[in-house]
Amino acid sequence: MNAPTSHAHLAPTVSQREVPQALLDALAQRFGANCSTAQIVREQHGRDESAFTTVPPPAAVVFAESTRDVADAVALAAQFKVPVIPFGVGSSLEGHLLAVQGGISLDVGRMNRVLSINAEDLTVTVQPGVTRKQLNEEIKSTGLFFPIDPGADATIGGMSATRASGTNAVRYGTMRENVLALEVVTASGEVIRTGTRAKKSSAGYDLTRLMVGSEGTLGVITEVTLRLYPLPEAVSAAVCSFPSIEAAVQTTITIIQMGVPIARVELIDSNTVRMVNAYAKLGLNESPMLLMEFHGSPNGVKEQAETVQEIASEHGGQSFEWATTPEERTRLWTARHNAYFAAIQSRAGCRAISTDTCVPISRLADCLLDSVAEADASGLPYFLVGHVGDGNFHFGYLIDPNIPAERETAEQLNHQLVQRALALEGTCTGEHGIGLHKMDFLLSETGTGAVDMMRTIKRALDPHNIMNPGKIFSL
Amino acid sequence: MNAPTSHAHLAPTVSQREVPQALLDALAQRFGANCSTAQIVREQHGRDESAFTTVPPPAAVVFAESTRDVADAVALAAQFKVPVIPFGVGSSLEGHLLAVQGGISLDVGRMNRVLSINAEDLTVTVQPGVTRKQLNEEIKSTGLFFPIDPGADATIGGMSATRASGTNAVRYGTMRENVLALEVVTASGEVIRTGTRAKKSSAGYDLTRLMVGSEGTLGVITEVTLRLYPLPEAVSAAVCSFPSIEAAVQTTITIIQMGVPIARVELIDSNTVRMVNAYAKLGLNESPMLLMEFHGSPNGVKEQAETVQEIASEHGGQSFEWATTPEERTRLWTARHNAYFAAIQSRAGCRAISTDTCVPISRLADCLLDSVAEADASGLPYFLVGHVGDGNFHFGYLIDPNIPAERETAEQLNHQLVQRALALEGTCTGEHGIGLHKMDFLLSETGTGAVDMMRTIKRALDPHNIMNPGKIFSL
Repeated sequence: MNAPTSHAHLAPTVSQREVPQALLDALAQRFGANCSTAQIVREQHGRDESAFTTVPPPAAVVFAESTRDVADAVALAAQFKVPVIPFGVGSSLEGHLLAVQGGISLDVGRMNRVLSINAEDLTVTVQPGVTRKQLNEEIKSTGLFFPIDPGADATIGGMSATRASGTNAVRYGTMRENVLALEVVTASGEVIRTGTRAKKSSAGYDLTRLMVGSEGTLGVITEVTLRLYPLPEAVSAAVCSFPSIEAAVQTTITIIQMGVPIARVELIDSNTVRMVNAYAKLGLNESPMLLMEFHGSPNGVKEQAETVQEIASEHGGQSFEWATTPEERTRLWTARHNAYFAAIQSRAGCRAISTDTCVPISRLADCLLDSVAEADASGLPYFLVGHVGDGNFHFGYLIDPNIPAERETAEQLNHQLVQRALALEGTCTGEHGIGLHKMDFLLSETGTGAVDMMRTIKRALDPHNIMNPGKIFSL
Repeated sequence: MNAPTSHAHLAPTVSQREVPQALLDALAQRFGANCSTAQIVREQHGRDESAFTTVPPPAAVVFAESTRDVADAVALAAQFKVPVIPFGVGSSLEGHLLAVQGGISLDVGRMNRVLSINAEDLTVTVQPGVTRKQLNEEIKSTGLFFPIDPGADATIGGMSATRASGTNAVRYGTMRENVLALEVVTASGEVIRTGTRAKKSSAGYDLTRLMVGSEGTLGVITEVTLRLYPLPEAVSAAVCSFPSIEAAVQTTITIIQMGVPIARVELIDSNTVRMVNAYAKLGLNESPMLLMEFHGSPNGVKEQAETVQEIASEHGGQSFEWATTPEERTRLWTARHNAYFAAIQSRAGCRAISTDTCVPISRLADCLLDSVAEADASGLPYFLVGHVGDGNFHFGYLIDPNIPAERETAEQLNHQLVQRALALEGTCTGEHGIGLHKMDFLLSETGTGAVDMMRTIKRALDPHNIMNPGKIFSL
């Protein structure tokens, strides 16, 4: 592939299709006050947490309150061949929500009911606007929890659409493994169901997994059935400092290769620890650290912890700090959860450009260390955090958005990082998705054959190209 | 849906397309002795382990030895619009391999090399004709294993194509969770790659999961990258007898709801124990039993076992028999692995008609007990085994193939069982697939909307309908 210029990446091709007044009138008639064309509402729905800033907002925002609403909105849009962009809370990172071809935003945030809790089956069915924190709050009394934690308090619909994962994925899997069934509104406005509440099935094409990660380009998710897990009998968290990132990474690799069922293992580099200390006065040792969590029986947790402590010691890990009460754990995890905000605060007026790659675990040190060296050499401030147990990590380059050269440097670093991950048999995105930002990388990763197959599926299921068009691949 | 007659099920519509002599000549020229039109070879490739007997064999069999061979065979078939049916070892159970529309069989059994073992990443890449036992034999020295065990020594290609699972799935998942990447020859003879060796990814549509379970209808799998697992430090197996099937099932439900990470939990009913005793002289207590296996650290295994023993006792479980050495474990698992053969031997000249449903775990007792009552009332001999930890179980009705009434009774029992599973929010097939036999059930399970979406994808990716046509759904 040709190296795209960073400029091309951050100023995506905008080719807005006309949104006829007749459609806006029809939406107003059908949805009344639940359809807005107010500038501020449109602008709120025309951006996400990506670094893109140059795209005009959608022509209207429909606030859906039911599957029927979604189906009707899509059917109207289909009639006028106008794009529809599903919207949860707007926390996506790669430009997924931007109206690059115009159209309407379909906000499912008000579809936020937990529809049925089947505690005895360890499943729950929710509307797409339920957020992960809300879900865990609502099922608290069952003794079960939903482990997927991408950081942001994203909606379950959005997490499904981007195949999200996060800190617990090393033990509990990603949305790919934890979505059992879906209700989806197709590009023609039809309502279909995929999957059942059975834990496994060989019944035909896996439409559930096709929709998970399709970023709103094949349909709108209107119901999600998820797997839940019993709250572990015992939970223990620990933080351990290392003399180098390499030592922390080698510790992680050994933990995974030995099959320790660790629930979380997060890397935070010394830059980031420093930022977090400044932000939250945590007084942590300003060295690279691993934040870990163990789930199981009291004995099982103890055993895992002992094994891990031994592995860490062999790699120079020191000052293990343990937390077994929820309060202590919260204090430790504050470092991880505040990393993004602490980093943003560390440089006035900055914006973070996030990367996201994932490599086979044995390649993690190679991929990470070379990228650290490049980032250090660039002179850009950055933070580095990683779900390293899965071989997944993120740099956040802290750029001044008013200095184009910084943006280009960040994009160049991102480009080099992704190419390195691909050369090491990894993927260009572990959990953020392709969106607008990684379309060239997807081609580089999987080749034209596979992307052409995606295009063929897209054309077949969405012949007028109205479902979040212009994302994942060009058509 | 209209209840299909059992007769329709077992005599599928055969509508063979012409296989032009010009194609046979071209195949003979390209493949020489690796293309056979001998009657016996065609017949071997025109049947599987299903109960269908009335379908003429394919017109020719091509023995592929490389991806290039597969691509060339498919390209030639595409040129003449002739069906291609991929073939592994012929162990499928629902008529997947039958040439209902004629065409050629593409045997990938000779593509049986393990291509690369990446022990440090817990991955392996194999050709599709590698069988699961061969794979585990070849990776033995790495300290890793591949857990998916559907019973038959099936090929990895076939297991991928049917989304197989089996005894270890309760802990390690199914082929859905364990296939990381594929090489696939598409319906036009193009070679594409899906996925990478990274453990997770959000890079575009999940073509890997679309191919897994597509039963050869979207392409031919020519390479599979799988997840492996460290051999557990300790393994312990146990058998426990129960006063009733219900007690065994309630024990299972509690084990799963409590989140015990059991590696295997298999139900065998008293009929089947009797058959196995007669076949293998095992002297087992002829009551319903659970066969269980625990994987983990020595302490972890002990802890799991104690918890399970306590749960079982509460449900009247008795005569726990433990096996911690490989030899003792083999003896216990002989009962499970011999169930099918023991059952076949129990009635001279019989054929087993297998069922396969999977329900949410809380519905397992309801689904299973009513089906046992129906089977008992029918007077047909049967065996009953189940991967009950997943809510998945199989009846095998032992019919005299020369007595049409027995066949119809078995089909009727199957029909009632599947309808019951669907009413309980389960699936019509946990692991055997749709093939020819369950096309109506798929429609009943997922509705016309989802099946129409499958058809749309099929038409888009295989416009001449040459990839294993007539399976999963009618076109």
